Amino acid sequence: MRITRKGRDFVIRFNCDYGEGAHPRILERLSQTNFTQTAGYGEDEYCREAADIIRGLIEAPGADVHFLTGGTQANLTVLSAALRPHQGVLSAETGHIASHETGAVEATGHKVLALPHKAGKISAAQVDETCRLHFADDAHEHIVMPGAVYISNPTELGTIYTRRELLQLREVCDRRNLVLYLDGARLGYGLAAPGNDLTLPFLASVADAFTIGGTKQGAMFGEAVVIANDALKRDFRYIIKQKGGMLAKGRLLGIQFSELLRDGLYLELSGHAVGLALKLKAALQECGHPLLVDSPTNQQFPILPDALLSELGSRYTYSHQMRVDESRSAVRFCTSWATRPEDVDTLIEDIRRNSHA
Amino acid sequence: MRITRKGRDFVIRFNCDYGEGAHPRILERLSQTNFTQTAGYGEDEYCREAADIIRGLIEAPGADVHFLTGGTQANLTVLSAALRPHQGVLSAETGHIASHETGAVEATGHKVLALPHKAGKISAAQVDETCRLHFADDAHEHIVMPGAVYISNPTELGTIYTRRELLQLREVCDRRNLVLYLDGARLGYGLAAPGNDLTLPFLASVADAFTIGGTKQGAMFGEAVVIANDALKRDFRYIIKQKGGMLAKGRLLGIQFSELLRDGLYLELSGHAVGLALKLKAALQECGHPLLVDSPTNQQFPILPDALLSELGSRYTYSHQMRVDESRSAVRFCTSWATRPEDVDTLIEDIRRNSHA
Amino acid sequence: MRITRKGRDFVIRFNCDYGEGAHPRILERLSQTNFTQTAGYGEDEYCREAADIIRGLIEAPGADVHFLTGGTQANLTVLSAALRPHQGVLSAETGHIASHETGAVEATGHKVLALPHKAGKISAAQVDETCRLHFADDAHEHIVMPGAVYISNPTELGTIYTRRELLQLREVCDRRNLVLYLDGARLGYGLAAPGNDLTLPFLASVADAFTIGGTKQGAMFGEAVVIANDALKRDFRYIIKQKGGMLAKGRLLGIQFSELLRDGLYLELSGHAVGLALKLKAALQECGHPLLVDSPTNQQFPILPDALLSELGSRYTYSHQMRVDESRSAVRFCTSWATRPEDVDTLIEDIRRNSHA
Amino acid sequence: MRITRKGRDFVIRFNCDYGEGAHPRILERLSQTNFTQTAGYGEDEYCREAADIIRGLIEAPGADVHFLTGGTQANLTVLSAALRPHQGVLSAETGHIASHETGAVEATGHKVLALPHKAGKISAAQVDETCRLHFADDAHEHIVMPGAVYISNPTELGTIYTRRELLQLREVCDRRNLVLYLDGARLGYGLAAPGNDLTLPFLASVADAFTIGGTKQGAMFGEAVVIANDALKRDFRYIIKQKGGMLAKGRLLGIQFSELLRDGLYLELSGHAVGLALKLKAALQECGHPLLVDSPTNQQFPILPDALLSELGSRYTYSHQMRVDESRSAVRFCTSWATRPEDVDTLIEDIRRNSHA
Repeated sequence: MRITRKGRDFVIRFNCDYGEGAHPRILERLSQTNFTQTAGYGEDEYCREAADIIRGLIEAPGADVHFLTGGTQANLTVLSAALRPHQGVLSAETGHIASHETGAVEATGHKVLALPHKAGKISAAQVDETCRLHFADDAHEHIVMPGAVYISNPTELGTIYTRRELLQLREVCDRRNLVLYLDGARLGYGLAAPGNDLTLPFLASVADAFTIGGTKQGAMFGEAVVIANDALKRDFRYIIKQKGGMLAKGRLLGIQFSELLRDGLYLELSGHAVGLALKLKAALQECGHPLLVDSPTNQQFPILPDALLSELGSRYTYSHQMRVDESRSAVRFCTSWATRPEDVDTLIEDIRRNSHA
Repeated sequence: MRITRKGRDFVIRFNCDYGEGAHPRILERLSQTNFTQTAGYGEDEYCREAADIIRGLIEAPGADVHFLTGGTQANLTVLSAALRPHQGVLSAETGHIASHETGAVEATGHKVLALPHKAGKISAAQVDETCRLHFADDAHEHIVMPGAVYISNPTELGTIYTRRELLQLREVCDRRNLVLYLDGARLGYGLAAPGNDLTLPFLASVADAFTIGGTKQGAMFGEAVVIANDALKRDFRYIIKQKGGMLAKGRLLGIQFSELLRDGLYLELSGHAVGLALKLKAALQECGHPLLVDSPTNQQFPILPDALLSELGSRYTYSHQMRVDESRSAVRFCTSWATRPEDVDTLIEDIRRNSHA
Repeated sequence: MRITRKGRDFVIRFNCDYGEGAHPRILERLSQTNFTQTAGYGEDEYCREAADIIRGLIEAPGADVHFLTGGTQANLTVLSAALRPHQGVLSAETGHIASHETGAVEATGHKVLALPHKAGKISAAQVDETCRLHFADDAHEHIVMPGAVYISNPTELGTIYTRRELLQLREVCDRRNLVLYLDGARLGYGLAAPGNDLTLPFLASVADAFTIGGTKQGAMFGEAVVIANDALKRDFRYIIKQKGGMLAKGRLLGIQFSELLRDGLYLELSGHAVGLALKLKAALQECGHPLLVDSPTNQQFPILPDALLSELGSRYTYSHQMRVDESRSAVRFCTSWATRPEDVDTLIEDIRRNSHA
Repeated sequence: MRITRKGRDFVIRFNCDYGEGAHPRILERLSQTNFTQTAGYGEDEYCREAADIIRGLIEAPGADVHFLTGGTQANLTVLSAALRPHQGVLSAETGHIASHETGAVEATGHKVLALPHKAGKISAAQVDETCRLHFADDAHEHIVMPGAVYISNPTELGTIYTRRELLQLREVCDRRNLVLYLDGARLGYGLAAPGNDLTLPFLASVADAFTIGGTKQGAMFGEAVVIANDALKRDFRYIIKQKGGMLAKGRLLGIQFSELLRDGLYLELSGHAVGLALKLKAALQECGHPLLVDSPTNQQFPILPDALLSELGSRYTYSHQMRVDESRSAVRFCTSWATRPEDVDTLIEDIRRNSHA
């Protein structure tokens, strides 16, 4: 059975969470404000409004908020601002900066110090031991010094950190003199996950800097960078400009974040995506398909027989994660703010039918 | 007299050409396509469509076309792809990469070799002489080697190159083994200028790479990078990604350029802006105000008495260019695709009244 | 028993192979030539002489030879010349560039892609599989592309590659379009090792570039960089200068390499060091001490009880390699061109006495 | 008349001050200490001794002293340690970092902000005005921020700064939050110049960091980097290692600086060179040859007729500085610690004879 919509065969995309445009309210507000003239480069009233909304939500009136064009930009800009030349950044080996940004951090001169991960996460104990080993080594001046910790929440495997884990990381970072940076490209999907005990104010208190992702969360594009640590604030806009992340019409970012965050739309959309992902997860488990990792968020990583994958492949896109054994692969299905419930239902039905065959 | 619109006092912005959102047709097409699912990172059908349109317009079926988030991104990405470590890029000292990108090119490891400009332009003779001096110097291995030439058209002073000048630059670049890169952030305003003899096919034949600007030309944001030289094409997308210029929802860029370029909207909007700028220019000249430079495009640089500027400053924004003498400054007025004719008329009227006092 | 020489207690250093000055013949020739005036920056007759000697020894009359101040300089200069911005270099995780150069390669913008090692070595199969996985990944443009292979011979664990292994690496590098670079900081000690089947002409035929180490091989300092691949030769001296590796009095390097290589002194000194190391190795094995790795060169890595190490520590220096279990550690003893046979005998005696207690 | 020494025709080199080896006392001490074993990487007793001598001479017991392989290394290492990513370094356009280091500073990501020079020097007023203009510009975040000032003493044109000029620079640097770095590659020749009023203790009090050059001052190679400002001290050795300036046998540098500085040899050799240079200068002036710049140090820049230069060229080397008019060029003659008085006499005689023809 081919899926046909408006008389045309096509596939339904579950391979990522940036397959559509933006939430209609964003497009509407862009239209409404389209001819209002503003200053450029993020110094307009919409950016100020959005930054104020964020400062309110995170309960940190002194935080700096910047709007950048994308996630790789945000990561490389924050980290190159935070590190001295001889320092590197600790990251799970699965971390986006370690694996999927074409060496963007190295291109700014800094090594990503990859640590083994547990379901996409790294622990305070790992960070502490890495630092201990570094300084215990007689030759430590010949080795890249850890200068920051990069974590993502949710991780690239859909898992989330707990308040306790982040407090432990904070304690190590304080003791070891490390900047703690949290990549929140999918932050909303984490905050909306069952079991989550993080809040925006908590994040602002525990991280030196973190991002609130727009691109994967209902915006057209853009990431809000929140800087809580005074030492990181100075001259940050110079560095945004140098690295190419400063939008001439910065207003576009202010308008989007303002619309997403002013009345709870951000979390509402996140909840929508997570709910559908968990429905899919339950169905996969019912059908006896194991999961590569137990994700409570919008990314699900089932281990499926190649035959089933081949069957699904004609009607849906998913992304390949890894080969597990001779006949099975782990793949990723993403839902998003834009996922249609009926598409998840169809997918579940197809999985069920082909699993029970 | 204060200008009042919808009951609110405000200023009319002439300080730049990116003060509004985007041409309404772009917003409409973004809305229409909003829920169509596509692949990410510029590998979607809209980007393909836009690239095909561009290849048609430039009459270069073999050219590569990429869509990047902004102008600084485009410049640093092309130049870091083109240069070897010991090479620098020749640019007018007024060139955007030399003056207004916070050292973005240097941050990729390459020196900008600034040359004196003539109305924002550099000549083939200057480039040739610089290369001659370099290689004639016994110590040339101790000096940054020229590896590319950066020009902008229109320049940062609104002037434009002629076909003859570009052919001469091409000849030197061939002889001296230099990459010729043209920054077309305001390309349309140049193509629509009286006296212009450049065409898109000509640019594709004369430059190794050039950009077709979107941000300042009616798009929300984005620059199209056209690569004509095969040697520059290889692996270019890796470098876009590394430098942070690859948009997850690349479709947004494809849609915008497609809409601007498919039926001539781009040049129509450019003509609108240039027409209004030249009307302003004529009025300035009539009032006896000299011009810093004779610009045929959307940027005009009159030299005005401080008293007049102060008077205008309460109702209009303009950007400061340089102090000329004790009582006069050169400033910049920009028009754009979005400039309202009545706003230019009001401005002209105010200039006239305050000049003839 | 404390060791006393010239009435002063002191330790005998086995922790590295750069604890002394230089072979006396080098000092003599430096004295003899001291007042001969020459051109600077390696363009003198001594550098030409040394380069000619090397071209003769490697039987590659067309090779380029450069003399750089040190090993980290040599590595970062060759690799930054060889790689495009999005490319990284494959290396054993134990490789010097991956572990002990404070991120020097990353500081030039390139990621070191660390591979698991086998006794310090990586295999053609590993390199091939890494490339295969890279290009098989749909997201490969988001991942650093392998652009070069770095190996050291002897490795940081004292082991050596065989002719067969290098030919296999060459084949993969050709097929995968990778530069093969061999760090020969201790090259002589490898060539003098029992079981070695490499020769200088073979190295020049199999590697795109390699170094002939001076610092650890009897010179005061300096590394000869041999470039066999034409594509790497161009403008290389510019890059040496830029990275700070070009010595004003380049003659010093020419004189040293000339003296070491003109009549076989280099290999003679290497043989001296290896002979003493193997004598130590045999004694360690006789005493029942296992070796971390089976090294045929001047670095030996015994696993010794902490009590014995503590005893030896008052009279000898060695370097710590890793803790093996609760009561034992792997350490490194190095011999060099300057090691006194009687010092090795004394060490062996002390090991014997304290092992049999 | 050809000059013949030991039966061989040759030229006498006046083109630079690094044409010979090293002062014989350095070679002697290298020989004497050759077999003393030491720790590597500058952590030996000779480096400690030399650093202590320097701290005594500069009367700054808290200063850090490091020994690096060369001048370009010293410059790029200090500046990359001192600057944040968006900052550049102010320098005379004739400064070594701006003109003769193949973009070494840019290769670390930082722009050299070149200022017009007066006889190789820049003034506090220039620095102040540049900073004022920077921060007065509305678009300053789009422009590289001045973060340090680089001066050389003597300058590349042989001139020297006065105490008053340096105090003024210090005052501006304090007020503008700039690091003041002085490149002393030829420091001794400056201190030995008539009219000099600088001292080593004064330099340590006025500069945040400065170098004491070895290469051009009687050593084989090496520069001592003195860091007076606490904020620059932290982790500096990591950065030396990363940039490739850390010598494995650091002892070589300690021994050389110790020998040069322990009993006044450094200044004695400097005085020798300056005396000969001034003798040459007087003779040039007597013959009516103008000077490009009035240099009181070991570099002299006469403007000479091409015919005379051609005549001299067969017996002496000099370096070309610039063409002055159709028949004359400015050239550079250098003396050094090693210059033989009789060679200067011969040169003067030849100039006289050919000038009075």
